[in-house]
Amino acid sequence: MPKIVDHHKQKEKLAEAAWRVILREGMERASVRNIAEEAGLSAGSLRHYFSTQSELLAFSMEMVSVRVKERIRGLPFTGEPIADAQLLLWELLPIDEERRAEMAVWLAFTAKALSDPLLQPLKDEIYAEMKLGMVSVIEELFNRYHSTASKEERALEAERLYALLDGLAIHSIMKPAEVDAGVMKSVIKQHINSICRNDPAAGG
Amino acid sequence: MPKIVDHHKQKEKLAEAAWRVILREGMERASVRNIAEEAGLSAGSLRHYFSTQSELLAFSMEMVSVRVKERIRGLPFTGEPIADAQLLLWELLPIDEERRAEMAVWLAFTAKALSDPLLQPLKDEIYAEMKLGMVSVIEELFNRYHSTASKEERALEAERLYALLDGLAIHSIMKPAEVDAGVMKSVIKQHINSICRNDPAAGG
Repeated sequence: MPKIVDHHKQKEKLAEAAWRVILREGMERASVRNIAEEAGLSAGSLRHYFSTQSELLAFSMEMVSVRVKERIRGLPFTGEPIADAQLLLWELLPIDEERRAEMAVWLAFTAKALSDPLLQPLKDEIYAEMKLGMVSVIEELFNRYHSTASKEERALEAERLYALLDGLAIHSIMKPAEVDAGVMKSVIKQHINSICRNDPAAGG
Repeated sequence: MPKIVDHHKQKEKLAEAAWRVILREGMERASVRNIAEEAGLSAGSLRHYFSTQSELLAFSMEMVSVRVKERIRGLPFTGEPIADAQLLLWELLPIDEERRAEMAVWLAFTAKALSDPLLQPLKDEIYAEMKLGMVSVIEELFNRYHSTASKEERALEAERLYALLDGLAIHSIMKPAEVDAGVMKSVIKQHINSICRNDPAAGG
């Protein structure tokens, strides 16, 4: 198996080179040639691992997704819905340099996926996984605080939470000094508190 | 003055050609050559109007911004804070084809602005204008429903509203069938209602 491991390691190295190029120069400069140069390889050797730029970008994005999922599995969840929701949501925000880089790759990838059909299945998969995560956060909160809420109310709250999370992340990438880790955490805290305080029976 | 008007008209025509290329093929294909071809001009004539690709993209984005502001000025505001807030926020969401195209250009522009210093002043200007709009929505709502709320609470709610709006818009661009106009309007309605129902004195 060592050959397969090496092959995967080399792909990871190339994906990381792609990240650096995207972060530094933008997606439109992330050509096979530039990424190969960044990784210290010839464009020909890069094509041994990825036959197209789209394939390489999809792999880079998948690497982000795998890393985020690994970190989430390691979180010290307690079973207390509000604390657990905060823990999970903070993990999905660009609160430090590593997460900022991941988020910037996600933003560039998403913008490109709009016009690249080869990237759409992965974009859809990531969207669906994230949405499922938001649905489960809302389920935990509602089962504790609004067990009578309807399916429709829960679905609406899951989309509201997911949109808030992605909007915050993008604003933080755009305006790091204005929307910093403290602001993002306060907004999420306020949002969760407001969900748990609302009485869905009061209308809306 | 007719010459100046013609010059501006020609720039608009080029900006619209840029939109079409961005929407159809993505930002990385929006080269001076491709945009000139789309507009039926030579790359040389395009350079008569825009000396760089960044200048052309900035002009296209500014055109989006001008159009949105014109539409907002024409909205039938009533002075009733909740109804007015909904009217304004819906105008900023991709609820039809024209607004979807504008939003897709904004997303591509934002992703590119992260690595193009020439685009950053305009990106910052648009962010600041939008943020100011959100601050004024929250002011109107809070003056009516929570006049005792602190400056900090208002600032936090403005960022929460702005993040929600941009997150919804991006999700709708990514997943038009899942996050359609109806879902976006319901989420905004629920959000405004929840803000007006909350009692900030209850903590958060």
